[in-house]
Amino acid sequence: MNFGTVAILGPGLIGGSLALALAERSLVDRLTIYARSPRALDEIRLAGVNAELGGNPSEAVREADVVVLCVPIEAMPALMQECRGALKPGALVTDVGSVKGSVDAALAPLLAGHALWIGSHPMAGSEQSGFVAARPDLFENAAVIVTPTAQTAPGAQALAEKFWRALGARVFTLSPGKHDQTVAEISHLPHLLAALLVLNADAAGLPLVGGGFRDSTRIASGAPDLWIEILSSNRTAVADACENLAALLVQVEGLLRQDAAAAKSELFKILQTAQSIRSQLTDQKPSAPRS
Amino acid sequence: MNFGTVAILGPGLIGGSLALALAERSLVDRLTIYARSPRALDEIRLAGVNAELGGNPSEAVREADVVVLCVPIEAMPALMQECRGALKPGALVTDVGSVKGSVDAALAPLLAGHALWIGSHPMAGSEQSGFVAARPDLFENAAVIVTPTAQTAPGAQALAEKFWRALGARVFTLSPGKHDQTVAEISHLPHLLAALLVLNADAAGLPLVGGGFRDSTRIASGAPDLWIEILSSNRTAVADACENLAALLVQVEGLLRQDAAAAKSELFKILQTAQSIRSQLTDQKPSAPRS
Repeated sequence: MNFGTVAILGPGLIGGSLALALAERSLVDRLTIYARSPRALDEIRLAGVNAELGGNPSEAVREADVVVLCVPIEAMPALMQECRGALKPGALVTDVGSVKGSVDAALAPLLAGHALWIGSHPMAGSEQSGFVAARPDLFENAAVIVTPTAQTAPGAQALAEKFWRALGARVFTLSPGKHDQTVAEISHLPHLLAALLVLNADAAGLPLVGGGFRDSTRIASGAPDLWIEILSSNRTAVADACENLAALLVQVEGLLRQDAAAAKSELFKILQTAQSIRSQLTDQKPSAPRS
Repeated sequence: MNFGTVAILGPGLIGGSLALALAERSLVDRLTIYARSPRALDEIRLAGVNAELGGNPSEAVREADVVVLCVPIEAMPALMQECRGALKPGALVTDVGSVKGSVDAALAPLLAGHALWIGSHPMAGSEQSGFVAARPDLFENAAVIVTPTAQTAPGAQALAEKFWRALGARVFTLSPGKHDQTVAEISHLPHLLAALLVLNADAAGLPLVGGGFRDSTRIASGAPDLWIEILSSNRTAVADACENLAALLVQVEGLLRQDAAAAKSELFKILQTAQSIRSQLTDQKPSAPRS
């Protein structure tokens, strides 16, 4: 399998891992990498990645068959505005942003008539960031959600799925809106909660914490500048998820304050149902790095 | 160091690990183990633990210098009622229950005049339970909280601290009430939240979860019958912690629903403060077993 020329715009953790994985699996004829900062380009040069590196996005995408946008979500529209004129007709453009509704709303009209566009979200990564944390096996067995809409050009979805599968990923499809609700529940809300759990604990308790607290709050170590953008971009869905969880907490608080067998039995059912669902999630972590 | 005869009442995960650790470190002259169920005794016999095993608690405690209560919290008072007459005068009785206010309130008057009593809580263990999960290094580097009160007999605290330190633990002291508030924040609330996160997630999202969600919800795999007792015994402190966290969530929800720079900056500060605190917790897990 070969995807011709692939352009990676933004070689951080995800973009850098993509470069390493594409090279290791010999999936490209040619790899171009755009980074805004010369220091980022130097890092990649030092790592010996076989790619053409530069600070001009139009140059990077000019011959590309597949363009993967790996810059922060809020930087995507301006970057695509800048280089869309250089895109090869029929090229596939996708991204790796962790929200999809706002990204799709901004990029679909911008790219119409310039390239085939479809959003992607690899559910891989860690609390680390930057090329320094990149690894060629990041996508192996990771879930990647591609987000087609009624406007998605024929062929874009199939090519994007083929691309992620070639990197070892398990591919799922959701609409951009359903994607955002789902990741709010399984990724963004857990992140917020980890932060709130840390803040809620008395400082005197911290030397005492065990593995449970460490596990529950590990993702609170994530870079705040990255997470504030993720949460802001998906703020309606995350706010809804917060509202739902606050209501659940108030319900549990009510059960705890009643000293009654019926309340205890209801709380037991909550724990039991959660345990039964959680036990179906294996704890094998195939590829995502751990702290 | 030698603690003479030590009696372990209830050889589950904690009691079983205690037996293995005391034997391995040669800290006893004699070890007696009481279990209610013959099957539990058979398990220990099969494991070849060097101890006198039996189903009569009075026999187990009769010559003991140190008695460690490792049965479920709700079973402690009746068990002590049954065997307190057989306690050797001056013996130390402690427990390993994960709440301390209610345990101390029940056991302190029951044991007054029969033995030296002080509560303990080793912050070790996992979502597994039973002797099958026991391990001799469970207490190495684990935090153990001992909970003296104004009624604690002289000598009881020093002996209990010496006992846990001999097993490799880091010992802290808190009053029973402060202990319960602290563990509600760092252990019981995180457990409840892990369960609620699992329940709050759309079933369609579960195949997509990454390492963050797995970490955040790992403790939701804990045995519901064990956890319902822990939460019930500490229900006022846990309800308070739920109330505080629900208020924090509602506050964050409000920030997310405002599309304003000031709100974004406040949310950023929350993430940043949490990251800074969380980063001070090392992720080395010295001894507590992991799933």
